[in-house]
Amino acid sequence: MNHFGRALSIQIFGESHGSMLGVLIDGCPPGIALQEADFLTDLKRRQAGAKGTTPRVEQDLPLLKSGIFNGFTTGAPLGIFFENQNIKSADYSKIRDVYRPGHADFVADKKFGGYNDYRGGGHFSGRLTLALTAAGVVAKKIYPQLKITAQLIEAGGSPNIEEAIEMAIATQDSIGGIVECRACHVPLGLGEPFFDSVESMLAHIVFAIPAIKGIEFGSGFAAARLRGSTHNDAFTNAEGHTATNHAGGINGGISNGNELVFRVAVKPTSSTPQTQQTYNTKTGQVESFAIGGRHDLCIALRVPPVLEAVTAIVLADLMLQTKGKASFLKERE
Amino acid sequence: MNHFGRALSIQIFGESHGSMLGVLIDGCPPGIALQEADFLTDLKRRQAGAKGTTPRVEQDLPLLKSGIFNGFTTGAPLGIFFENQNIKSADYSKIRDVYRPGHADFVADKKFGGYNDYRGGGHFSGRLTLALTAAGVVAKKIYPQLKITAQLIEAGGSPNIEEAIEMAIATQDSIGGIVECRACHVPLGLGEPFFDSVESMLAHIVFAIPAIKGIEFGSGFAAARLRGSTHNDAFTNAEGHTATNHAGGINGGISNGNELVFRVAVKPTSSTPQTQQTYNTKTGQVESFAIGGRHDLCIALRVPPVLEAVTAIVLADLMLQTKGKASFLKERE
Amino acid sequence: MNHFGRALSIQIFGESHGSMLGVLIDGCPPGIALQEADFLTDLKRRQAGAKGTTPRVEQDLPLLKSGIFNGFTTGAPLGIFFENQNIKSADYSKIRDVYRPGHADFVADKKFGGYNDYRGGGHFSGRLTLALTAAGVVAKKIYPQLKITAQLIEAGGSPNIEEAIEMAIATQDSIGGIVECRACHVPLGLGEPFFDSVESMLAHIVFAIPAIKGIEFGSGFAAARLRGSTHNDAFTNAEGHTATNHAGGINGGISNGNELVFRVAVKPTSSTPQTQQTYNTKTGQVESFAIGGRHDLCIALRVPPVLEAVTAIVLADLMLQTKGKASFLKERE
Amino acid sequence: MNHFGRALSIQIFGESHGSMLGVLIDGCPPGIALQEADFLTDLKRRQAGAKGTTPRVEQDLPLLKSGIFNGFTTGAPLGIFFENQNIKSADYSKIRDVYRPGHADFVADKKFGGYNDYRGGGHFSGRLTLALTAAGVVAKKIYPQLKITAQLIEAGGSPNIEEAIEMAIATQDSIGGIVECRACHVPLGLGEPFFDSVESMLAHIVFAIPAIKGIEFGSGFAAARLRGSTHNDAFTNAEGHTATNHAGGINGGISNGNELVFRVAVKPTSSTPQTQQTYNTKTGQVESFAIGGRHDLCIALRVPPVLEAVTAIVLADLMLQTKGKASFLKERE
Repeated sequence: MNHFGRALSIQIFGESHGSMLGVLIDGCPPGIALQEADFLTDLKRRQAGAKGTTPRVEQDLPLLKSGIFNGFTTGAPLGIFFENQNIKSADYSKIRDVYRPGHADFVADKKFGGYNDYRGGGHFSGRLTLALTAAGVVAKKIYPQLKITAQLIEAGGSPNIEEAIEMAIATQDSIGGIVECRACHVPLGLGEPFFDSVESMLAHIVFAIPAIKGIEFGSGFAAARLRGSTHNDAFTNAEGHTATNHAGGINGGISNGNELVFRVAVKPTSSTPQTQQTYNTKTGQVESFAIGGRHDLCIALRVPPVLEAVTAIVLADLMLQTKGKASFLKERE
Repeated sequence: MNHFGRALSIQIFGESHGSMLGVLIDGCPPGIALQEADFLTDLKRRQAGAKGTTPRVEQDLPLLKSGIFNGFTTGAPLGIFFENQNIKSADYSKIRDVYRPGHADFVADKKFGGYNDYRGGGHFSGRLTLALTAAGVVAKKIYPQLKITAQLIEAGGSPNIEEAIEMAIATQDSIGGIVECRACHVPLGLGEPFFDSVESMLAHIVFAIPAIKGIEFGSGFAAARLRGSTHNDAFTNAEGHTATNHAGGINGGISNGNELVFRVAVKPTSSTPQTQQTYNTKTGQVESFAIGGRHDLCIALRVPPVLEAVTAIVLADLMLQTKGKASFLKERE
Repeated sequence: MNHFGRALSIQIFGESHGSMLGVLIDGCPPGIALQEADFLTDLKRRQAGAKGTTPRVEQDLPLLKSGIFNGFTTGAPLGIFFENQNIKSADYSKIRDVYRPGHADFVADKKFGGYNDYRGGGHFSGRLTLALTAAGVVAKKIYPQLKITAQLIEAGGSPNIEEAIEMAIATQDSIGGIVECRACHVPLGLGEPFFDSVESMLAHIVFAIPAIKGIEFGSGFAAARLRGSTHNDAFTNAEGHTATNHAGGINGGISNGNELVFRVAVKPTSSTPQTQQTYNTKTGQVESFAIGGRHDLCIALRVPPVLEAVTAIVLADLMLQTKGKASFLKERE
Repeated sequence: MNHFGRALSIQIFGESHGSMLGVLIDGCPPGIALQEADFLTDLKRRQAGAKGTTPRVEQDLPLLKSGIFNGFTTGAPLGIFFENQNIKSADYSKIRDVYRPGHADFVADKKFGGYNDYRGGGHFSGRLTLALTAAGVVAKKIYPQLKITAQLIEAGGSPNIEEAIEMAIATQDSIGGIVECRACHVPLGLGEPFFDSVESMLAHIVFAIPAIKGIEFGSGFAAARLRGSTHNDAFTNAEGHTATNHAGGINGGISNGNELVFRVAVKPTSSTPQTQQTYNTKTGQVESFAIGGRHDLCIALRVPPVLEAVTAIVLADLMLQTKGKASFLKERE
């Protein structure tokens, strides 16, 4: 299903080359000042345009279509929609015969019996992260005290991002990257033991972002190589401050009040300009093919605002569960 | 909340040192032959006893208390309970003053206002993975064609597990490890785009296992350092077989029919025998302390059957969603 | 929250006097032929225009905005939106001072801290049943073998509907009514014991329809006055056909293969033309007031297509759970 | 599925003639004093023993098996179990051939492929309301300010309950009844528009109680015969007090602060002592049969504590959603 969240629930819809896409946010507290301009910074950050990103640039103007009145959220489902304008569907006419490696073309065709909208990946498109980013803007406004920052800390195996992008352009091959997300002022006590752990909720939504292939909290995979005496974070005061933060701000699935830290692995964009081999269903042969269309060489460049968004969505949801829907209005009084 | 799953839903309960723990499995199809003996292999694998594991050994006899009649599941909620017998609660009396580093003691105390059962971690205890493992046994029986195998592939940074354990014993310090899980015969088409991707569902439940700090699918974090031309898995036939499997059997969140492959990072057991520093709430000082009780030096040793179990739970859930509750009986006819 | 359903999930949004309203349908199987014309019959039936209904008539043209491609559903979230056009918001300017009796004005104002869109009831408006009706059209197409028929069997206490409407017009006072819904060809075995009984699911969504104040299955309240020997439905063959149908087609919460029968009570439209007494928050007095705007004298007249729609939604959801998402495509092959 | 609730979630399990039954309560706030004695009043009220109830009397001793420590709830899943002791399974051996009219025997057999536990109705048994009643005791303790009272106001069509029971005994035929539930001090603002209306949530869980065939709020079915000018409840002050309460304390699906009032119709017990006709699968004939076992002549007598319980569960859930999980501890400080 395409919805996520308990107290704050989001439902995304739309396709890359359909008429529109968007998100419905259910459970958003009333009384939040919200206008289209509030979305522009994060939407701009997510947008293509920089070196290494696709030349397809949409205006991405958010349309606030429900749940808003006189400039404030009403408490009813908040609808934020985007119209698709810069569409070149002809580019995708060959997908039906040649499943692009790394893409969802094959599984979508099989799962949906050939009825899926295959243009630009259809509903599987990374363009849907626009809806996630918009929902994140709202989530950030629900608890503005949370400071969430994600950044690309490595691309193509190199901490020098710029250099890596230049290399990718020079060699005309796509590259991956690692994005780190940090959240300050996360209150102590969010999450639940076991299935609703903070890690579970974050990992769940993070893997909804296309191209993510791994997530690690705190020391993550490096923790597997540390000793307990080194890895354990010693408490230094009654508020739970720890001398180190190998745990990434989470103990037993519950936020411990220290900084929340996690990293995700982004695979190289499947749409590399390089010639590839793949099966052609029409000829019944494995053949060379070159991908058309407009694509990002390093999709990881565009992941940070999306990662911040989904983090904000999870934290806002957990806080609304803990503090209650009614708390928001009371705090404003 | 402590339940997980849509068509196959599990709810776990209990504490490390309470009278019992267990799992309710809702949505289990009727007509599955099930007896206590079916659980023994996986429960035994999960159990302590090997070098590097805790000397606390429970008999762990599963009690089938509901949803079973004449040796078959009935379709009603299946209750599998375990009584705690080998309890030494006195060991934990000091936890209230000294929050053990790396444990949930601190967050549990704060989140639950001091009412949590702190003995042995209470409801946060790794002992609850017994309930997960039992649920996994049932999930494996629902779709026995799935072949799920997890194994410890690295401990303490070394692929030589035995050597690493010996070192941990010699130095009396806990170590972590990496566990890999592979599932064969996963049908093409499980999972949904975005929030219910196979990665999302697996990561969600995997992070319910205590001590897991990272998960990666296919090439995972290594993918971030590969080129698109290398990372992409070329399709070689109409069934979607791929020449390589960097994707770990998942495209666009949907299983593609190739082997499902993922790895998890297990942190070193927080209960290291080494003397540690931590805050004492009674004295108001950071003090040295040594942990008591009976513990595993390498908890990663016991993760494989649990990882198989949660994987089976997710895959059985997704298959029941796809094939329908009624399919099970029909296939038996 | 504003979503409903498990395998087939609907989320409604929008306001009476906002820019649009609509529904997202998640879990709709792919391959269903669908065009705007398919909606017209049920939308027309729901629409005002007949004697006793409001003179506000919208065109109610469904806009298929996502989840559809080349005339067939794709399996991605299906978005059906409606633009509001015939809006006279000025009519509602006084609502802020005078909470209309029987309406949600008072509770909405308090619950949402004064931020709710009060125009025409905002998100609480009966106009949202347009979205339910549209979702019902899709649900009916998922399992076209189901034959669901609802009709007004009593209005204003009289089985002679026409006479009752004439009387309401003559006396200029709103009236209620009773609507009966019957579904044939409901397969045996839908629903679950206890919380997901067929009655539970139907009653849940039926009370989402504004103005409904009661529901009864089979003999319903009359059953409370019958003897067991009379009320029990004797089975007459191995397929579970019963000689009578006091149970309304449901035993133990599960459909038994006989006709599904239930009735709902619709209260008289709160917006009666009669002068009423109510509290004025500005003057602090109970005062006479007459309601403005355009309203239905007997809203029950418009309930049948909505009741059919929600019934279809529940039955399609239960069937998809039982038969599985994949069944739909297989049956078409 | 057999779970219900969002912030406070309950999962019931067990069978009439299995080894045990019970309930897991997830989301119960920590710090509630709870002991077995707290359950006795409501369990006693639910129990048989009075005229017109079954001679099968269980001790019904609640076993608090998890989520409790030192006499207080811990915040972990609360497990309340009951062992079945007074079991006479031999009574039910004939059910397999002769589906009892009005019972779930037929649908259970078909739905679960013959694997269901048919003894005493198995998981469908009214005995499971013991688990609901126990959960209700906890829910009442979460918000003790709520005063919820249900009573049988009519039996066998007569407001004179005692007389009706005597008549049922004299004629040896089961009778139904009507139970009314009232809740005072329900805070204004619970519930949501549409799918999570107070009516929707209450009706959903009420129809989980076996033998309930109808529910109506406020004036209910009588409202369908009233005029708007009579039915509308005039507000008399700024707090939303209304002069009448035809709405039963709910406007637009939201509690309005007035008394919550609803009634349910209970069918006559299916297990009437009268000889009945039904299909015999062994002989292939419709035959006379007389039901064995121990049964209630008027099951409605035992409904009030169960109805209070489910009402308390819904209201506690809605209040926890509104006020937040953390509110409970704060209010105790």
